[in-house]
Amino acid sequence: MAKKHLAAVVLAILLALAAGATGMRASEIDDGMPLIHMLRPLLHSGGDLGRRGRVPCDSWRFAVETNTLRDWDTVPARCEKYVGNYMLGGHYRSDSRAVANEAIAYAEGLNLTGQGKEVWVFDVDETTLSNLPYYAKHGFGVEPYNWSTFGAYVKEANAPVLPETQRLYKRLQALGIKPVILTGRREDKREATANNLAAAGYTGYLKLLLKPQNVKVSSIEFKSGERKKLQDAGYVIVGNIGDQWTDLLGEPEGGRTFKLPDPMYYIG
Amino acid sequence: MAKKHLAAVVLAILLALAAGATGMRASEIDDGMPLIHMLRPLLHSGGDLGRRGRVPCDSWRFAVETNTLRDWDTVPARCEKYVGNYMLGGHYRSDSRAVANEAIAYAEGLNLTGQGKEVWVFDVDETTLSNLPYYAKHGFGVEPYNWSTFGAYVKEANAPVLPETQRLYKRLQALGIKPVILTGRREDKREATANNLAAAGYTGYLKLLLKPQNVKVSSIEFKSGERKKLQDAGYVIVGNIGDQWTDLLGEPEGGRTFKLPDPMYYIG
Repeated sequence: MAKKHLAAVVLAILLALAAGATGMRASEIDDGMPLIHMLRPLLHSGGDLGRRGRVPCDSWRFAVETNTLRDWDTVPARCEKYVGNYMLGGHYRSDSRAVANEAIAYAEGLNLTGQGKEVWVFDVDETTLSNLPYYAKHGFGVEPYNWSTFGAYVKEANAPVLPETQRLYKRLQALGIKPVILTGRREDKREATANNLAAAGYTGYLKLLLKPQNVKVSSIEFKSGERKKLQDAGYVIVGNIGDQWTDLLGEPEGGRTFKLPDPMYYIG
Repeated sequence: MAKKHLAAVVLAILLALAAGATGMRASEIDDGMPLIHMLRPLLHSGGDLGRRGRVPCDSWRFAVETNTLRDWDTVPARCEKYVGNYMLGGHYRSDSRAVANEAIAYAEGLNLTGQGKEVWVFDVDETTLSNLPYYAKHGFGVEPYNWSTFGAYVKEANAPVLPETQRLYKRLQALGIKPVILTGRREDKREATANNLAAAGYTGYLKLLLKPQNVKVSSIEFKSGERKKLQDAGYVIVGNIGDQWTDLLGEPEGGRTFKLPDPMYYIG
């Protein structure tokens, strides 16, 4: 018990330090939101920014999040600490909160027909579930994507919830909007994904749609194709949330799109 | 001469202070880029963030820049100082630089036909030209849009250049890609806009396209319609840059889109 208490005190101090490093006040991150993943906060923010052509890691992130930078393989090595600090220091969570708040406000303002045909599309990775425990051990996106180690992590079905998305999910259900889960994970991950979603508290969704096992199709083609099928089946996609632009773009996009942050990887 | 020197020293000190406030090093903003607009940097970053439902101004900006937050009228009053500091403290410029760098890298990698049919679409406000002198006097977007005072400012034809966009513009011309200026400003501003562009150093563009005077059309409809006409006339739109998502979205979008920062206003 004493050990646990000490750990909590140490964590609080580290979070306060991280908050200082990002220019945030401790009160902004100690807001009762459960922590996704506890790790030593990384206090630096990307050195080596002075060279010609290079931009601060925060501006690199701007270009990533606005779909200006595309098809990038890995986070620049100089930005590992910046991204780590962003992900663990409260900033990621408050950006996610801004998105969830807006999505809920939009949903609450909808004029629903009550016919039960309204659906909302959710992505999985970095949207309903967080792979931060994995990426924290793999350089926050600095290491090249490893199909085999990430696949093994997914099979563990132990990824934590992204609490802001879950808040949206439950609010939508209360409003009568049915969640549809649409992921680029392939069919061989269906059981692990369903188990992980259930363990994280996502229940009552209409469909769980995964990519067919051996079909070569881009994320944007697969996802817009599945949305088209939903629409053709009479569903009305009132909203669509994901961390990748390829989750969101491509007709039909649904009534509104909601872009969650993800400075760790790019999916084309 | 001595007076000028003193002013330069004072400016350097203020910039260093602003850099400290944003967590940036002075070396990152003192990189020889000309200043758009000199004003006392605002050092605070939006108080009153602790209330339920509210997010830090930086997260509000994330939602704005990712097209999650739409149809907003004004910057939240609590974020005036944050936005002012962002716009004047080096952050806006380095975000713009990240976008211009990526656009130039993309353009340099294109396989051009040499037939002179490749064009690049540029927006005007907060893209080729900066209205920061106006917005700095009007609360950085906190004050409601004033058609009459902003119209008078545009007629002055005195808006400074956004240097990062100009660097891209000149590089594209050197590569043989022709700029097309496409703006939501109406035809009655044609002369002022042409004069302002010329004074700011934008010469040799293929077309200057403005909105017809009395037609009610959304920005996205007008701009995608004009891009369609360019395409139908045999031009190949290899790139498209603007500060609003309504500059960029809507078929045809062109080969790539480049989103410049703008936390001051929204155009639907």
